[in-house]
Amino acid sequence: MTKNILVLPGDGIGTEIMAEAVKVLDFLNDKYSLGLNLEEALLGGAAIDATGKALPDNTFELAKKADAILLGAVGGPKWDKLPPADRPEKGGLLRLRSELQLFGNLRPAILYPQLAGASSLKPEVVSGLDILIVRELTGGIYFGEPRGIRELENGERQGYNTYVYSESEIRRIAKVAFEAAMKRGKRLCSVDKANVLEVTMLWREVVQSMAADYPEVELSHMYVDNAAMQLVRAPKQFDVMVTGNMFGDILSDAAAMLTGSIGMLPSASLDINNRGMYEPCHGSAPDIAGQDKANPLATIMSVAMMLRYSLGLEQPANDIDAAVSSVLDQGIRTGDIYSEGCKLVGTAGMGDAVIAAL
Amino acid sequence: MTKNILVLPGDGIGTEIMAEAVKVLDFLNDKYSLGLNLEEALLGGAAIDATGKALPDNTFELAKKADAILLGAVGGPKWDKLPPADRPEKGGLLRLRSELQLFGNLRPAILYPQLAGASSLKPEVVSGLDILIVRELTGGIYFGEPRGIRELENGERQGYNTYVYSESEIRRIAKVAFEAAMKRGKRLCSVDKANVLEVTMLWREVVQSMAADYPEVELSHMYVDNAAMQLVRAPKQFDVMVTGNMFGDILSDAAAMLTGSIGMLPSASLDINNRGMYEPCHGSAPDIAGQDKANPLATIMSVAMMLRYSLGLEQPANDIDAAVSSVLDQGIRTGDIYSEGCKLVGTAGMGDAVIAAL
Ligand SMILES: CC(C)[C@H](C(=O)O)[C@@H](O)C(=O)O
Ligand SMILES: CC(C)[C@H](C(=O)O)[C@@H](O)C(=O)O
Repeated sequence: MTKNILVLPGDGIGTEIMAEAVKVLDFLNDKYSLGLNLEEALLGGAAIDATGKALPDNTFELAKKADAILLGAVGGPKWDKLPPADRPEKGGLLRLRSELQLFGNLRPAILYPQLAGASSLKPEVVSGLDILIVRELTGGIYFGEPRGIRELENGERQGYNTYVYSESEIRRIAKVAFEAAMKRGKRLCSVDKANVLEVTMLWREVVQSMAADYPEVELSHMYVDNAAMQLVRAPKQFDVMVTGNMFGDILSDAAAMLTGSIGMLPSASLDINNRGMYEPCHGSAPDIAGQDKANPLATIMSVAMMLRYSLGLEQPANDIDAAVSSVLDQGIRTGDIYSEGCKLVGTAGMGDAVIAAL
Repeated sequence: MTKNILVLPGDGIGTEIMAEAVKVLDFLNDKYSLGLNLEEALLGGAAIDATGKALPDNTFELAKKADAILLGAVGGPKWDKLPPADRPEKGGLLRLRSELQLFGNLRPAILYPQLAGASSLKPEVVSGLDILIVRELTGGIYFGEPRGIRELENGERQGYNTYVYSESEIRRIAKVAFEAAMKRGKRLCSVDKANVLEVTMLWREVVQSMAADYPEVELSHMYVDNAAMQLVRAPKQFDVMVTGNMFGDILSDAAAMLTGSIGMLPSASLDINNRGMYEPCHGSAPDIAGQDKANPLATIMSVAMMLRYSLGLEQPANDIDAAVSSVLDQGIRTGDIYSEGCKLVGTAGMGDAVIAAL
C-alpha cells in the first residue's frame, strides 16, 4: 500500500523550507513505516528556467498520479517580465489547482498562544483566535471566460474578466464548509456581495438552501466589505467562513495577518475525493531566499494537514502538531516570529528542533 | 450667486445624523452669508415607501441641478426582500452615483489622537494614521455588462458578472489619485490583481504610464491580497491608495475600521468637475435608528469636505474641523467612541456641542 507524495519545492525560500518539511516527513515515514514514496519535481520559476514551462509535462503527469502533493512556494521578480499566462503563478500554480480540480481551499488562521505578542492587534482582540477560511479555488473570476484586453471602437483599450459560478460549483464548496463547521464550532459565515453582484446573489441562495441539511450549523451571511471590517474589529466572532476565489484570496490574507505570524499558517487544497495539495500560506519571499532565514513551520504543518486530510494518518499528524507546540514552548524562533528573550534559529535549525521534539 | 445643496437624509439613522449636519451647515451659512440654498428630498427606503421608487424622478431632477449633495445613509431590513435592482442600495445609491458620473470616491481613514484607544490595533501600529483611499465608483464589476443569472444547457443556473475598465476610466481616476497625492505625502500605491486578472493588468499599465507626469509622486503597485495584509500589519506605510470599485469597497472598509471609529469618517464622491456627493462612510445602522444614539460627526465632517471640495469654501470647512477637534478635546463622546471618563451624549447633544464649539 505505497502512497506517492509529490514534492514541489518551487522558488525562492521554497527549496529551503521544503528541505525541512521533507526531513520531518522522512522521519515519521521511518518511525511509523508509513510506506510513503516521495518524489520531487519542478514547478514555477525553477521549472521555467529548466524546461521553459512553469508546469512541465513531467510534473503534471506525476501530480495526476500522486496521492498528495506538498508545495513550497512559486514566483519571483526574475519571471515577472514574462507574459502573465507563462509566469510561475498563472502558468504553474493556478493551472495545477485547476487541472487537478482542487476546488476546496482550507486556510486556518490560528493564533498560537506562544506568539500572541506578534499580532498588530491588541491581545484581547486576537487571543485564542481560531478561524477557518474555506475558499473556492478553481472557479470564480480567476478562471471565468471571456477575459482579455480588447480594442474598443473609439480606439481605446478595455480590460475585461468574467465572474461566474454555477449552482453545482457553489454547492460543492459550501458542502466542504458546512462539514468543516460540523467538526468545529458549528458556525458558518458565507461572504458575498449579494447587494450588488448577481453571481453572489445565486451564491447566497444556494448556500442558504443547504442550511436545512445541516440543522446544527448556525449559518449567517455577510457582505464582503463588512467581513473585511469585522475581521479587523472583532475576528473572534467567526468560526468557519466560506467564500469565492477572489474574496477568499483577500480575506484569507487579512485573516492570516491578524495572527502576526503568516510564517506559521499551512493550507490545504482538496478535490472532491480529498486528494490534495498542501502549501504554506506565505509566498516565496525572494528577498530572504538562500539565507537560512525562512520559517519552515508553515510547510511542516502543511505536512501534518496532508497526513490528516489526504492520507488519514491522524497519529503522525498529531505528533507534528505537538512537536511544533513544544518547540514554541522552548522559545525557539525564526526571525519572523522572534521576540526578546527567545532563541533565534535559522531554517535548518528550526527543522532540527522539530525533529528533536518528535 | 446662490448655491443649491440637495440634502438626502435617507434611511435608518440617516434622518437623525442629517438633522445635526444641517444644523451645522445652517449656522455657517448664516455666519458667513454663504448664500447656500438647502433643499431636502427622498432617497432609498424612505423614497420606496413614499413613491415606490428608490430614486424618485423628483430627487433625480434636483440632484442633477444641485451644486452639491449631502447624503445620510440608505437601506435596511425592511426593503431587503425587494428584487436587488429595486432596493435602496442598487436602485437608489448606485444609480445616483452612476447617473451623476461620480467616479472619484475619496475615503480618508484618519485616527484622531483623542480616540487612539478605540482601535482594535496596537497604539504604535495606528497612532498618527492618515490614509486616503481613492476608489473608482462608477465602473468595474459594479456596473459591468453582461450580468445576471442564466440557465445552462444541463439545467443548472449560473450567475455571472463582468469586471471591465477602459483606459480612459482608469486614467481619470488615477489622475484624481496622483493629484491627491501631490497635496499630501506624495506617495501613491495602486492596488490590483495583475498576476491574475487581465482588466487589472491594463489598470497597472495605465497607472504606470502616468507616473512620468507626476515625477514628485512615488508610485508603487501592490496586489490586493497583499494590500489587505499590509493594512493590518503596518497601515502607516500608506499615504494615498487608488483602486477599482470592488477592491476599493473592501479595502476602504478595512482601513476605516483600523481607526476603530467608523462613525468619524466622511467621504466624497466627485465628478470630473468636482461636483459631488458627500456621505459618512458608515451605513444606516437600523438597529440604533431613532434612539438618539448615532454619531453625527462623520456627516458633519462630510459637510466640511463638501464646503472644501465642491464649493471652495475653505474657512467654514476649517471651522468645522476645529470645532470637531475641540469637542473631542472636551471629552464629549457618542456611544460608539465612548471610553471611561468621557462625557456621553446623544446624536443631538453631539450636534449641539459642535455648534457651541463653532
Ligand atoms: C500567487 C497568486 C496567484 C495566488 C492567488 O491569488 O490565488 C496567491 O495569492 C494565493 O492566495 O495562493
Ligand atoms: C451599499 C453598497 C452598495 C455600497 C457599495 O458597495 O458601494 C457601500 O458598501 C459603500 O461602500 O458605499
